[in-house]
Amino acid sequence: MTKIISVKLDMNEMADITQEVVNFVKESGKNEGAVLVFSIGSTGAITTIEYEPGLKKDFPRIMDKIAPYGEFYDHHLTWHDDNGSSHVKASIVGASEVIPFKEGRLLTGTWQQIVVINFDTRSRERKVALQILS
Amino acid sequence: MTKIISVKLDMNEMADITQEVVNFVKESGKNEGAVLVFSIGSTGAITTIEYEPGLKKDFPRIMDKIAPYGEFYDHHLTWHDDNGSSHVKASIVGASEVIPFKEGRLLTGTWQQIVVINFDTRSRERKVALQILS
Amino acid sequence: MTKIISVKLDMNEMADITQEVVNFVKESGKNEGAVLVFSIGSTGAITTIEYEPGLKKDFPRIMDKIAPYGEFYDHHLTWHDDNGSSHVKASIVGASEVIPFKEGRLLTGTWQQIVVINFDTRSRERKVALQILS
Repeated sequence: MTKIISVKLDMNEMADITQEVVNFVKESGKNEGAVLVFSIGSTGAITTIEYEPGLKKDFPRIMDKIAPYGEFYDHHLTWHDDNGSSHVKASIVGASEVIPFKEGRLLTGTWQQIVVINFDTRSRERKVALQILS
Repeated sequence: MTKIISVKLDMNEMADITQEVVNFVKESGKNEGAVLVFSIGSTGAITTIEYEPGLKKDFPRIMDKIAPYGEFYDHHLTWHDDNGSSHVKASIVGASEVIPFKEGRLLTGTWQQIVVINFDTRSRERKVALQILS
Repeated sequence: MTKIISVKLDMNEMADITQEVVNFVKESGKNEGAVLVFSIGSTGAITTIEYEPGLKKDFPRIMDKIAPYGEFYDHHLTWHDDNGSSHVKASIVGASEVIPFKEGRLLTGTWQQIVVINFDTRSRERKVALQILS
């Protein structure tokens, strides 16, 4: 069972997609298993985080310290664009997370939400694939 | 098949949970498949590493260079706590790893152990979910 | 269904293994599911990235800014080797990615390739396990 959801996000914005994942698990009718959450596209990433206004700023700020927008990237020579930093950030954070569930409930912590982040340098309609495993 | 294990860890401490994963695969009776290892809670993370005294210091040291404890985080304004850096580190490293096994044995390298890391700024009882996939 | 592939890579070199994953999914005869891609060994890592000459330089360059080769690592005291930075980089990027497929096709973006990276300080024959999940 596979579903693709879509979220419009600004540069460095993240969205909490936990409820979409919860609903998807419910629709599957499965009690126990795991759900794969996968970012389609190379400038988006999936992780878990406490979704609150502070960390929504802190996380992209630290990622930009790692791979600053505005510096030179060889990627820009290939396409004459400006999102080399976006690609590097997304590859570090990673495109997939797998979340276990039992008795129909995600085994996440109370302050642990599932998020998709748009690291691209422009607003993007980010696509995320959800799939029930096992 | 799902199991939750618990490991008490100090700030920036990691534990080798490979043997727990090996035992869990054995209990499952499965010869071939994959095991999901998931950190429950947003200030813990799962990765693989060569578990030896040197890297037990190096890894948290580099993570602290990325997101230094002691600097300002917007997260601290939300809860008046001090673990903004912990959340950022955990979200970069990630909450899940999936490890394949065949003929009842993990397909990990000889010097590649499965670890849970406590990035929180205090000692924590870290919970880790193990689940057989496929 | 599990397969181990092998790719010879220089220090900091990455290889696009998307076609190997596509072929493996085809061989499985499955239409819908997910494929686990796992780096066997603690100085290699798996991620997705736009595989083009610029990012092949940018990604290892930023990873080396995070964990510079040439600096002191406690790891070097354990084995008297020089690859402490390699281990740290690999543990940050992670050993596993899980990629969904539907109607026999990977649900990756057009510019999103699956890569294995050799962070070790010498040329290595990197082994990668592929496994069909669900």
